[in-house]
Amino acid sequence: MFITLEGIEGSGKTTQIVHISEFLESRGYECVLTREPGGTKIGEKIRAILLDPESKDMDPLAELLLYTADRAQHIKELIIPSLSTGKIVLCDRYFDATVVYQGFARGLDIALINSLHKLALNDLKPDITFLLDLPPETGLSRAWKQIDNGTRVGHETRFEKEKLSFHKKVRAGYLELARLEPGRFLIIDASKNENQVKQQIINALREKCLK
Amino acid sequence: MFITLEGIEGSGKTTQIVHISEFLESRGYECVLTREPGGTKIGEKIRAILLDPESKDMDPLAELLLYTADRAQHIKELIIPSLSTGKIVLCDRYFDATVVYQGFARGLDIALINSLHKLALNDLKPDITFLLDLPPETGLSRAWKQIDNGTRVGHETRFEKEKLSFHKKVRAGYLELARLEPGRFLIIDASKNENQVKQQIINALREKCLK
Repeated sequence: MFITLEGIEGSGKTTQIVHISEFLESRGYECVLTREPGGTKIGEKIRAILLDPESKDMDPLAELLLYTADRAQHIKELIIPSLSTGKIVLCDRYFDATVVYQGFARGLDIALINSLHKLALNDLKPDITFLLDLPPETGLSRAWKQIDNGTRVGHETRFEKEKLSFHKKVRAGYLELARLEPGRFLIIDASKNENQVKQQIINALREKCLK
Repeated sequence: MFITLEGIEGSGKTTQIVHISEFLESRGYECVLTREPGGTKIGEKIRAILLDPESKDMDPLAELLLYTADRAQHIKELIIPSLSTGKIVLCDRYFDATVVYQGFARGLDIALINSLHKLALNDLKPDITFLLDLPPETGLSRAWKQIDNGTRVGHETRFEKEKLSFHKKVRAGYLELARLEPGRFLIIDASKNENQVKQQIINALREKCLK
Protein backbone atom coordinates (compact mmCIF):
# COMPACT_ATOMS: atom_id res chain seq x y z
CA MET A 1 0.00 0.00 0.00
CA PHE A 2 1.16 3.49 -0.93
CA ILE A 3 0.05 6.23 1.51
CA THR A 4 0.84 9.92 1.14
CA LEU A 5 0.47 12.89 3.48
CA GLU A 6 -0.36 16.28 2.08
CA GLY A 7 -1.07 19.70 3.54
CA ILE A 8 0.19 23.25 3.79
CA GLU A 9 3.34 24.34 5.67
CA GLY A 10 2.94 23.68 9.40
CA SER A 11 0.15 21.12 9.03
CA GLY A 12 2.14 18.50 10.95
CA LYS A 13 2.88 15.99 8.19
CA THR A 14 6.44 15.31 9.34
CA THR A 15 5.24 14.58 12.90
CA GLN A 16 2.20 12.53 11.95
CA ILE A 17 4.03 10.30 9.46
CA VAL A 18 6.03 8.92 12.41
CA HIS A 19 2.81 8.20 14.37
CA ILE A 20 1.30 6.40 11.36
CA SER A 21 4.42 4.31 10.97
CA GLU A 22 4.49 3.38 14.67
CA PHE A 23 0.82 2.42 14.60
CA LEU A 24 1.16 0.29 11.45
CA GLU A 25 4.34 -1.39 12.68
CA SER A 26 2.62 -2.24 15.99
CA ARG A 27 0.07 -4.07 13.83
CA GLY A 28 2.81 -6.05 12.10
CA TYR A 29 3.22 -4.05 8.90
CA GLU A 30 6.64 -3.07 7.63
CA CYS A 31 6.80 0.62 6.69
CA VAL A 32 9.16 2.75 4.63
CA LEU A 33 9.08 6.46 5.52
CA THR A 34 10.06 8.82 2.77
CA ARG A 35 9.40 12.28 1.40
CA GLU A 36 9.34 14.41 -1.71
CA PRO A 37 11.33 16.14 -2.82
CA GLY A 38 14.43 14.34 -1.60
CA GLY A 39 13.57 10.67 -1.00
CA THR A 40 16.83 9.48 -2.62
CA LYS A 41 20.45 10.60 -2.63
CA ILE A 42 20.04 12.22 -6.05
CA GLY A 43 16.68 13.59 -4.89
CA GLU A 44 18.36 15.29 -1.92
CA LYS A 45 20.49 17.27 -4.37
CA ILE A 46 17.41 18.21 -6.42
CA ARG A 47 15.61 19.18 -3.19
CA ALA A 48 18.47 21.52 -2.30
CA ILE A 49 17.97 23.40 -5.59
CA LEU A 50 14.18 23.48 -5.26
CA LEU A 51 14.03 24.74 -1.70
CA ASP A 52 16.95 27.17 -1.84
CA PRO A 53 15.62 30.73 -1.30
CA GLU A 54 18.19 31.77 -3.96
CA SER A 55 16.14 29.87 -6.55
CA LYS A 56 13.36 32.46 -6.45
CA ASP A 57 13.78 33.29 -10.15
CA MET A 58 13.16 29.69 -11.15
CA ASP A 59 10.85 29.32 -14.12
CA PRO A 60 7.63 27.51 -13.00
CA LEU A 61 8.11 24.97 -15.76
CA ALA A 62 11.71 24.25 -14.72
CA GLU A 63 10.42 23.83 -11.16
CA LEU A 64 7.76 21.36 -12.35
CA LEU A 65 10.39 19.37 -14.26
CA LEU A 66 12.72 19.26 -11.25
CA TYR A 67 9.93 17.90 -9.03
CA THR A 68 9.14 15.34 -11.72
CA ALA A 69 12.82 14.33 -12.01
CA ASP A 70 12.99 13.85 -8.25
CA ARG A 71 9.80 11.77 -8.41
CA ALA A 72 11.05 9.61 -11.28
CA GLN A 73 14.19 8.72 -9.31
CA HIS A 74 12.13 8.15 -6.14
CA ILE A 75 9.60 5.86 -7.82
CA LYS A 76 12.28 3.79 -9.55
CA GLU A 77 14.77 3.55 -6.70
CA LEU A 78 12.53 3.39 -3.63
CA ILE A 79 8.73 3.38 -4.05
CA ILE A 80 8.28 0.54 -6.57
CA PRO A 81 10.93 -1.77 -5.03
CA SER A 82 9.41 -1.25 -1.54
CA LEU A 83 5.82 -1.85 -2.68
CA SER A 84 6.85 -4.92 -4.62
CA THR A 85 8.32 -6.52 -1.48
CA GLY A 86 5.04 -5.96 0.41
CA LYS A 87 6.06 -2.92 2.45
CA ILE A 88 3.81 0.05 3.13
CA VAL A 89 5.30 3.23 1.68
CA LEU A 90 4.50 6.38 3.69
CA CYS A 91 5.42 9.49 1.76
CA ASP A 92 5.49 13.10 3.01
CA ARG A 93 4.16 14.94 -0.09
CA TYR A 94 3.81 13.48 -3.58
CA PHE A 95 2.16 14.33 -6.91
CA ASP A 96 -0.82 16.18 -5.35
CA ALA A 97 1.64 18.71 -3.93
CA THR A 98 2.88 19.40 -7.46
CA VAL A 99 -0.65 19.93 -8.77
CA VAL A 100 -1.45 22.25 -5.89
CA TYR A 101 1.77 24.28 -5.54
CA GLN A 102 2.74 24.54 -9.21
CA GLY A 103 -0.79 24.42 -10.64
CA PHE A 104 -3.33 26.00 -8.29
CA ALA A 105 -0.91 28.36 -6.52
CA ARG A 106 1.66 29.32 -9.21
CA GLY A 107 -0.79 29.15 -12.10
CA LEU A 108 0.94 26.55 -14.27
CA ASP A 109 -1.46 24.71 -16.57
CA ILE A 110 -2.91 21.79 -14.57
CA ALA A 111 -3.58 19.81 -17.76
CA LEU A 112 0.16 20.07 -18.54
CA ILE A 113 1.06 18.86 -15.03
CA ASN A 114 -1.28 15.89 -15.41
CA SER A 115 0.00 15.11 -18.92
CA LEU A 116 3.58 15.15 -17.71
CA HIS A 117 2.73 12.79 -14.84
CA LYS A 118 1.04 10.41 -17.27
CA LEU A 119 3.80 10.66 -19.89
CA ALA A 120 6.79 10.33 -17.60
CA LEU A 121 5.52 8.51 -14.50
CA ASN A 122 2.85 6.21 -15.81
CA ASP A 123 0.29 8.11 -13.69
CA LEU A 124 1.32 6.30 -10.46
CA LYS A 125 -1.09 7.46 -7.72
CA PRO A 126 -1.23 6.64 -3.97
CA ASP A 127 -3.87 4.29 -2.54
CA ILE A 128 -4.64 6.69 0.30
CA THR A 129 -3.84 10.35 0.81
CA PHE A 130 -4.24 12.03 4.19
CA LEU A 131 -4.93 15.71 3.71
CA LEU A 132 -3.96 17.51 6.93
CA ASP A 133 -6.21 20.52 6.57
CA LEU A 134 -6.02 23.73 8.60
CA PRO A 135 -6.16 27.50 8.06
CA PRO A 136 -2.88 28.83 6.60
CA GLU A 137 -2.67 31.44 9.38
CA THR A 138 -2.40 28.62 11.94
CA GLY A 139 -0.04 26.51 9.83
CA LEU A 140 2.35 29.35 9.06
CA SER A 141 2.42 30.56 12.64
CA ARG A 142 3.41 27.02 13.71
CA ALA A 143 6.03 26.76 10.96
CA TRP A 144 7.61 30.12 11.82
CA LYS A 145 7.65 29.29 15.55
CA GLN A 146 9.60 26.12 14.68
CA ILE A 147 11.97 28.04 12.42
CA ASP A 148 12.56 30.67 15.11
CA ASN A 149 13.23 28.21 17.91
CA GLY A 150 15.35 25.97 15.71
CA THR A 151 13.13 22.85 15.83
CA ARG A 152 12.33 23.07 12.11
CA VAL A 153 15.79 21.85 11.19
CA GLY A 154 17.02 20.70 7.82
CA HIS A 155 13.97 22.51 6.53
CA GLU A 156 14.36 25.26 3.97
CA THR A 157 12.25 28.36 3.99
CA ARG A 158 11.44 29.16 0.35
CA PHE A 159 7.79 28.22 0.66
CA GLU A 160 7.31 29.60 4.14
CA LYS A 161 8.40 32.97 2.74
CA GLU A 162 5.52 33.07 0.24
CA LYS A 163 2.64 35.42 1.00
CA LEU A 164 -0.45 34.30 2.90
CA SER A 165 -2.51 34.52 -0.30
CA PHE A 166 -0.24 31.86 -1.83
CA HIS A 167 -0.89 29.46 1.05
CA LYS A 168 -4.63 30.11 0.81
CA LYS A 169 -4.50 29.00 -2.82
CA VAL A 170 -2.57 25.90 -1.77
CA ARG A 171 -5.18 24.99 0.83
CA ALA A 172 -8.07 25.60 -1.58
CA GLY A 173 -6.26 23.49 -4.22
CA TYR A 174 -5.88 20.56 -1.85
CA LEU A 175 -9.56 20.72 -0.86
CA GLU A 176 -10.52 20.77 -4.53
CA LEU A 177 -8.42 17.67 -5.27
CA ALA A 178 -10.00 15.91 -2.27
CA ARG A 179 -13.44 16.79 -3.64
CA LEU A 180 -12.53 15.30 -7.03
CA GLU A 181 -11.16 12.04 -5.57
CA PRO A 182 -13.16 11.31 -2.40
CA GLY A 183 -12.24 7.61 -2.55
CA ARG A 184 -8.54 8.33 -2.17
CA PHE A 185 -8.43 11.42 0.06
CA LEU A 186 -9.07 11.41 3.81
CA ILE A 187 -9.42 14.93 5.17
CA ILE A 188 -8.05 15.35 8.70
CA ASP A 189 -8.69 18.43 10.86
CA ALA A 190 -5.09 19.43 11.52
CA SER A 191 -5.95 22.52 13.55
CA LYS A 192 -6.33 20.22 16.57
CA ASN A 193 -3.39 19.29 18.80
CA GLU A 194 -0.86 16.59 17.87
CA ASN A 195 -2.55 13.79 19.79
CA GLN A 196 -6.03 14.60 18.49
CA VAL A 197 -4.75 14.67 14.92
CA LYS A 198 -3.01 11.35 15.47
CA GLN A 199 -6.25 9.80 16.78
CA GLN A 200 -8.23 11.00 13.76
CA ILE A 201 -5.65 9.46 11.43
CA ILE A 202 -5.53 6.16 13.30
CA ASN A 203 -9.32 5.93 13.35
CA ALA A 204 -9.41 6.55 9.62
CA LEU A 205 -6.70 3.96 9.02
CA ARG A 206 -8.59 1.37 11.12
CA GLU A 207 -11.81 2.02 9.25
CA LYS A 208 -10.39 2.34 5.76
CA CYS A 209 -7.47 -0.03 5.44
CA LEU A 210 -7.09 -2.56 8.21
CA LYS A 211 -9.19 -5.68 8.50
CA MET B 1 19.32 33.19 -35.17
CA PHE B 2 19.75 30.20 -32.86
CA ILE B 3 22.86 28.10 -33.62
CA THR B 4 23.87 24.96 -31.72
CA LEU B 5 27.04 22.87 -31.69
CA GLU B 6 26.82 19.14 -31.18
CA GLY B 7 29.28 16.28 -31.15
CA ILE B 8 30.89 13.62 -29.00
CA GLU B 9 33.34 14.29 -26.16
CA GLY B 10 36.55 15.83 -27.51
CA SER B 11 35.04 17.04 -30.78
CA GLY B 12 36.12 20.62 -30.08
CA LYS B 13 32.74 22.32 -29.54
CA THR B 14 33.98 24.50 -26.67
CA THR B 15 36.92 25.75 -28.76
CA GLN B 16 34.99 26.26 -32.00
CA ILE B 17 32.10 28.15 -30.40
CA VAL B 18 34.59 30.92 -29.57
CA HIS B 19 35.82 31.04 -33.18
CA ILE B 20 32.24 31.24 -34.48
CA SER B 21 31.47 34.06 -32.10
CA GLU B 22 34.62 36.01 -33.08
CA PHE B 23 33.84 35.57 -36.77
CA LEU B 24 30.20 36.67 -36.41
CA GLU B 25 31.10 39.64 -34.19
CA SER B 26 33.72 40.74 -36.75
CA ARG B 27 30.81 40.87 -39.21
CA GLY B 28 28.80 43.07 -36.86
CA TYR B 29 26.54 40.52 -35.23
CA GLU B 30 26.05 40.45 -31.46
CA CYS B 31 26.46 36.93 -30.06
CA VAL B 32 25.52 35.25 -26.80
CA LEU B 33 27.63 32.19 -25.97
CA THR B 34 25.98 29.61 -23.78
CA ARG B 35 25.81 25.89 -23.10
CA GLU B 36 23.65 23.06 -21.87
CA PRO B 37 23.42 21.88 -19.27
CA GLY B 38 24.24 24.91 -17.17
CA GLY B 39 23.48 28.07 -19.16
CA THR B 40 21.90 29.78 -16.13
CA LYS B 41 22.65 30.03 -12.40
CA ILE B 42 19.98 27.44 -11.61
CA GLY B 43 21.17 25.41 -14.59
CA GLU B 44 24.70 25.35 -13.16
CA LYS B 45 23.33 23.59 -10.08
CA ILE B 46 21.42 21.10 -12.24
CA ARG B 47 24.57 20.55 -14.31
CA ALA B 48 26.52 19.70 -11.16
CA ILE B 49 24.04 16.90 -10.37
CA LEU B 50 23.97 15.60 -13.96
CA LEU B 51 27.71 15.47 -14.49
CA ASP B 52 28.72 14.26 -11.03
CA PRO B 53 30.31 10.79 -11.36
CA GLU B 54 28.46 9.97 -8.08
CA SER B 55 25.17 10.20 -10.01
CA LYS B 56 25.88 6.96 -11.86
CA ASP B 57 22.74 5.29 -10.43
CA MET B 58 20.53 7.99 -11.87
CA ASP B 59 17.38 6.66 -13.49
CA PRO B 60 17.47 7.50 -17.24
CA LEU B 61 14.05 9.12 -16.95
CA ALA B 62 15.17 11.30 -14.02
CA GLU B 63 18.19 12.27 -16.10
CA LEU B 64 15.97 13.22 -19.05
CA LEU B 65 13.77 15.34 -16.78
CA LEU B 66 16.79 17.13 -15.28
CA TYR B 67 18.09 18.02 -18.74
CA THR B 68 14.62 19.24 -19.65
CA ALA B 69 14.39 21.34 -16.45
CA ASP B 70 17.75 22.92 -17.24
CA ARG B 71 16.55 23.61 -20.79
CA ALA B 72 13.25 25.16 -19.63
CA GLN B 73 15.11 27.61 -17.39
CA HIS B 74 17.65 28.31 -20.14
CA ILE B 75 15.03 29.01 -22.82
CA LYS B 76 13.00 31.28 -20.54
CA GLU B 77 15.83 33.17 -18.89
CA LEU B 78 18.40 33.43 -21.70
CA ILE B 79 17.60 32.02 -25.16
CA ILE B 80 14.23 33.66 -25.87
CA PRO B 81 15.16 37.08 -24.40
CA SER B 82 18.43 37.10 -26.41
CA LEU B 83 16.77 36.07 -29.69
CA SER B 84 14.01 38.61 -29.21
CA THR B 85 16.55 41.45 -28.98
CA GLY B 86 18.14 40.36 -32.26
CA LYS B 87 21.21 38.60 -30.86
CA ILE B 88 22.64 35.37 -32.25
CA VAL B 89 22.54 32.63 -29.63
CA LEU B 90 25.42 30.13 -29.88
CA CYS B 91 24.78 27.12 -27.69
CA ASP B 92 27.20 24.29 -26.84
CA ARG B 93 24.82 21.28 -26.90
CA TYR B 94 21.01 21.44 -26.90
CA PHE B 95 18.03 19.13 -27.48
CA ASP B 96 19.80 16.92 -30.06
CA ALA B 97 22.27 15.92 -27.33
CA THR B 98 19.34 14.70 -25.23
CA VAL B 99 17.93 12.63 -28.09
CA VAL B 100 21.33 11.13 -28.76
CA TYR B 101 22.69 10.53 -25.24
CA GLN B 102 19.45 9.55 -23.48
CA GLY B 103 17.73 8.02 -26.50
CA PHE B 104 20.19 6.43 -28.92
CA ALA B 105 22.91 5.68 -26.35
CA ARG B 106 21.00 4.93 -23.12
CA GLY B 107 17.99 3.38 -24.83
CA LEU B 108 15.26 5.67 -23.50
CA ASP B 109 12.22 5.80 -25.80
CA ILE B 110 12.93 8.51 -28.41
CA ALA B 111 9.20 9.11 -28.93
CA LEU B 112 8.95 9.93 -25.19
CA ILE B 113 11.91 12.34 -25.46
CA ASN B 114 10.28 14.08 -28.42
CA SER B 115 6.87 14.19 -26.70
CA LEU B 116 8.38 15.75 -23.60
CA HIS B 117 10.16 18.39 -25.71
CA LYS B 118 6.89 19.23 -27.46
CA LEU B 119 4.83 19.19 -24.25
CA ALA B 120 7.17 21.18 -22.06
CA LEU B 121 9.29 23.27 -24.41
CA ASN B 122 7.00 24.00 -27.33
CA ASP B 123 9.38 22.07 -29.60
CA LEU B 124 11.86 24.96 -29.85
CA LYS B 125 14.57 23.92 -32.33
CA PRO B 126 17.76 25.69 -33.51
CA ASP B 127 17.99 27.29 -36.96
CA ILE B 128 21.39 25.71 -37.61
CA THR B 129 23.23 22.87 -35.90
CA PHE B 130 26.91 22.22 -36.48
CA LEU B 131 27.66 18.55 -35.95
CA LEU B 132 31.39 18.22 -35.22
CA ASP B 133 31.87 14.66 -36.36
CA LEU B 134 34.89 12.45 -35.69
CA PRO B 135 35.67 8.89 -34.61
CA PRO B 136 35.10 8.43 -30.85
CA GLU B 137 38.62 6.96 -30.47
CA THR B 138 40.07 10.31 -31.59
CA GLY B 139 37.63 12.40 -29.56
CA LEU B 140 38.14 10.45 -26.35
CA SER B 141 41.89 10.45 -26.69
CA ARG B 142 41.79 14.27 -27.03
CA ALA B 143 39.41 14.60 -24.07
CA TRP B 144 41.53 12.40 -21.81
CA LYS B 145 44.71 14.24 -22.79
CA GLN B 146 43.01 17.50 -21.72
CA ILE B 147 41.81 15.93 -18.47
CA ASP B 148 45.30 14.58 -17.72
CA ASN B 149 47.12 17.83 -18.42
CA GLY B 150 44.51 19.91 -16.63
CA THR B 151 43.33 21.97 -19.62
CA ARG B 152 39.84 20.40 -19.52
CA VAL B 153 38.91 22.44 -16.45
CA GLY B 154 35.50 22.91 -14.95
CA HIS B 155 34.61 19.86 -16.97
CA GLU B 156 33.23 16.80 -15.25
CA THR B 157 34.11 13.29 -16.32
CA ARG B 158 30.90 11.24 -16.06
CA PHE B 159 30.46 10.91 -19.81
CA GLU B 160 34.15 10.53 -20.60
CA LYS B 161 34.11 7.49 -18.30
CA GLU B 162 31.51 5.67 -20.41
CA LYS B 163 32.77 2.80 -22.57
CA LEU B 164 33.81 3.29 -26.21
CA SER B 165 30.69 1.43 -27.38
CA PHE B 166 28.58 4.16 -25.71
CA HIS B 167 30.36 6.91 -27.63
CA LYS B 168 29.99 4.96 -30.86
CA LYS B 169 26.22 4.94 -30.31
CA VAL B 170 26.34 8.68 -29.63
CA ARG B 171 28.18 9.36 -32.89
CA ALA B 172 25.82 7.12 -34.87
CA GLY B 173 22.82 8.84 -33.24
CA TYR B 174 24.05 12.28 -34.24
CA LEU B 175 24.66 11.16 -37.83
CA GLU B 176 21.15 9.70 -37.94
CA LEU B 177 19.61 12.99 -36.73
CA ALA B 178 21.63 14.87 -39.35
CA ARG B 179 20.30 12.51 -42.01
CA LEU B 180 16.72 13.18 -40.87
CA GLU B 181 17.09 16.98 -40.86
CA PRO B 182 19.58 17.85 -43.61
CA GLY B 183 18.27 21.43 -43.80
CA ARG B 184 19.26 22.17 -40.22
CA PHE B 185 22.42 20.11 -39.70
CA LEU B 186 25.84 20.99 -41.10
CA ILE B 187 28.29 18.13 -40.68
CA ILE B 188 31.87 19.25 -40.04
CA ASP B 189 34.87 16.92 -40.21
CA ALA B 190 36.21 17.46 -36.69
CA SER B 191 39.08 14.99 -37.03
CA LYS B 192 41.06 17.79 -38.69
CA ASN B 193 43.12 20.30 -36.70
CA GLU B 194 41.60 23.31 -34.92
CA ASN B 195 42.24 25.77 -37.73
CA GLN B 196 40.95 23.47 -40.47
CA VAL B 197 37.77 22.82 -38.49
CA LYS B 198 37.32 26.54 -37.94
CA GLN B 199 37.67 27.18 -41.70
CA GLN B 200 35.07 24.53 -42.55
CA ILE B 201 32.63 26.14 -40.09
CA ILE B 202 33.25 29.67 -41.34
CA ASN B 203 32.82 28.57 -44.96
CA ALA B 204 29.54 26.90 -44.06
CA LEU B 205 28.37 29.98 -42.16
CA ARG B 206 29.25 32.23 -45.12
CA GLU B 207 27.40 30.00 -47.54
CA LYS B 208 24.41 29.20 -45.38
CA CYS B 209 23.58 32.23 -43.27
CA LEU B 210 25.32 35.40 -44.26
CA LYS B 211 24.34 37.54 -47.19
